[in-house]
Amino acid sequence: MPYFDYNATTPLYPEVKETWLDTVNNNWQNPSSPYQSAARVKNLLEDCRQYLADVFQCKKEHVIFNSGATEGNNAILHHILTHSNESEKVIISAIEHPSVIETAKKLFPNRFELLPVDNNGVVKLEILEKLIKKNKICLVSVMAANNECGAIQPWQDVQSTCQKANIAYHCDASQAIGKIQCDNLFNSDFVTGSAHKFGGPKGVGFLVLGNDSCNFNSLIGGAQEMGHRSGTENLAAIKGMITALKCSLKNFDIKKENLQINLKKFIDAITKKIPGLNIIGNQNNRLPNTVMAIMPNFENIRWVLNLDKLGFQISTGSACATGKNVPSHVLAAIGYSNDEIKRSVRISGGWNNSNEDWSQLANAFEKVSENLKNSPKTTIVIP
Amino acid sequence: MPYFDYNATTPLYPEVKETWLDTVNNNWQNPSSPYQSAARVKNLLEDCRQYLADVFQCKKEHVIFNSGATEGNNAILHHILTHSNESEKVIISAIEHPSVIETAKKLFPNRFELLPVDNNGVVKLEILEKLIKKNKICLVSVMAANNECGAIQPWQDVQSTCQKANIAYHCDASQAIGKIQCDNLFNSDFVTGSAHKFGGPKGVGFLVLGNDSCNFNSLIGGAQEMGHRSGTENLAAIKGMITALKCSLKNFDIKKENLQINLKKFIDAITKKIPGLNIIGNQNNRLPNTVMAIMPNFENIRWVLNLDKLGFQISTGSACATGKNVPSHVLAAIGYSNDEIKRSVRISGGWNNSNEDWSQLANAFEKVSENLKNSPKTTIVIP
Repeated sequence: MPYFDYNATTPLYPEVKETWLDTVNNNWQNPSSPYQSAARVKNLLEDCRQYLADVFQCKKEHVIFNSGATEGNNAILHHILTHSNESEKVIISAIEHPSVIETAKKLFPNRFELLPVDNNGVVKLEILEKLIKKNKICLVSVMAANNECGAIQPWQDVQSTCQKANIAYHCDASQAIGKIQCDNLFNSDFVTGSAHKFGGPKGVGFLVLGNDSCNFNSLIGGAQEMGHRSGTENLAAIKGMITALKCSLKNFDIKKENLQINLKKFIDAITKKIPGLNIIGNQNNRLPNTVMAIMPNFENIRWVLNLDKLGFQISTGSACATGKNVPSHVLAAIGYSNDEIKRSVRISGGWNNSNEDWSQLANAFEKVSENLKNSPKTTIVIP
Repeated sequence: MPYFDYNATTPLYPEVKETWLDTVNNNWQNPSSPYQSAARVKNLLEDCRQYLADVFQCKKEHVIFNSGATEGNNAILHHILTHSNESEKVIISAIEHPSVIETAKKLFPNRFELLPVDNNGVVKLEILEKLIKKNKICLVSVMAANNECGAIQPWQDVQSTCQKANIAYHCDASQAIGKIQCDNLFNSDFVTGSAHKFGGPKGVGFLVLGNDSCNFNSLIGGAQEMGHRSGTENLAAIKGMITALKCSLKNFDIKKENLQINLKKFIDAITKKIPGLNIIGNQNNRLPNTVMAIMPNFENIRWVLNLDKLGFQISTGSACATGKNVPSHVLAAIGYSNDEIKRSVRISGGWNNSNEDWSQLANAFEKVSENLKNSPKTTIVIP
């Protein structure tokens, strides 16, 4: 069953399962408890924090474990809300995940500026500069790479623009971690991520704070995570996340290049096999595993369901929006019409996909194209 | 290594590990994705929700999965804050978990009434009535059973008092689930719990809403959990939680009675072996696994560390407060002095403790008592 929806979620690396099992067997105690076995758990937790700090090149005490990027993104916007004044606005890129863009709209209804993107799905830096000049801004939120079209965002430029203007910068790195080099990403004021996007368990993620966030506090309670986020620490999942990151970074360059080669071959193949298919964005500035296409005809859900019947899982867009029957705000921001958006599909591969899987996926697209042309238009029921 | 700190966290039931592993192997897809394997995951998720609804005797659509009680407790207080007006107060019992009491103090600094408890650690219902008569109240929060002293609270009375006065009632049931019968508990407006307190994984829990909470929304994003709590659903952990609950409820009455017998024998034994030891609360109204004692002498941490050396893990109180070096607010509320609180220890057993473990624990207490009497007073370093 070749799975090509890694941006929605990933299978676990086998090593992650081993880590989880070993931890729940041997180190399941509450790290806040006052005996030796709990102290050992606490030490293992701090080892995980140190590992992330080393990889991310940030301070250990700035790494906070939580339940994932949705929690982290919500918490940051709540934090900014209580640490800003009514005259200040937030700037949110038009292609952010709903956990950023919808939360910001709700919390800052009259203090919200949308940062537009270009034809390739990349934020317009000149507009960012203008918005900053024109308004008092307390936060800029621009993700590292988009979950739908895969466009990599210029976080280094956004970072330096914000630093010069003394504005907090939040970067949702959920789709970047484990997929691309993240140089300087963690110099941002807030960075969020989820383990299940890079081969780790669901329900666990991280938030990295900048130097000026010592008063950040998302959940109040037992004062875990240096007082920044309460709740009994989930060491088994945290260690699983660390293992997943180690697996992702092993032979990183080779795996990344292999993905890029396979993706390019796949794009070349379907472009030939399905005339009129339109690939979104710039191939040189995209996640190595992701491509989004506007199909020349037929609704995207028909492509997805027919490919599923042939054993290939792809997506109509973000899983967080699938089934809600609203057109993708990402593609709308890039400038696609509702009619085009209804024909968009996302393919996002990963480490389990062989070269053969990719070429078979292209063949499957061709087969589905023929099937759809020959089949009467029927009402589709989402399973 | 007999472990007697089940109220801090529990080992996993072996069946929970199997469930987790089976789920991450076979049903790891994102339940929001648009293909058959994801639809199967979605169905399994809804089966879990139905199981909880059946056990809790509530509506399926009122069961929300989240990362645990700390998240749930924080979310409820934030929800009440945004859905009440400045003239309304909250009533919080004096023995609530920090994730309730500290959050309420922070969010409702001038709108906060503390509900006192009696000598047995049980909330005073007549004071609740008075507070309700005297103030406009938007929420009452009284837990089902206390995590430190084990005192079971009169939730049915609190519930009916709140219902008559048309006030929302929140019950943190973290320590009650799987330990005592929870009749009518889920008729409350908000009930919270954590899987890792009853043999399930950490990082997962639930929140049960009442009939009037259709506008509850804690995390904004992909609109999972019927729009009440966003974030990719962690099916492996949720199924693990369900399995843990099933294990807890299997032969429930027999296991509960066995625990009660062992605990009573243990209390009788240490009361004889250690003269001057003071048991907190009323034995007939306590969690079957929990006892808190004021030792006649020596700081609690010395008892805990010496018992640990003999292979027995007990606690100085709540793990969420351990190491913070603040005296227990629960024991202070019951009326104990700081000097007494410094000598308090908590024993909380569970399904892995044999009859033999309990009697050996009493012997270990006696041995530690002798050791401490014979040892010079040394500075204790918490491991």
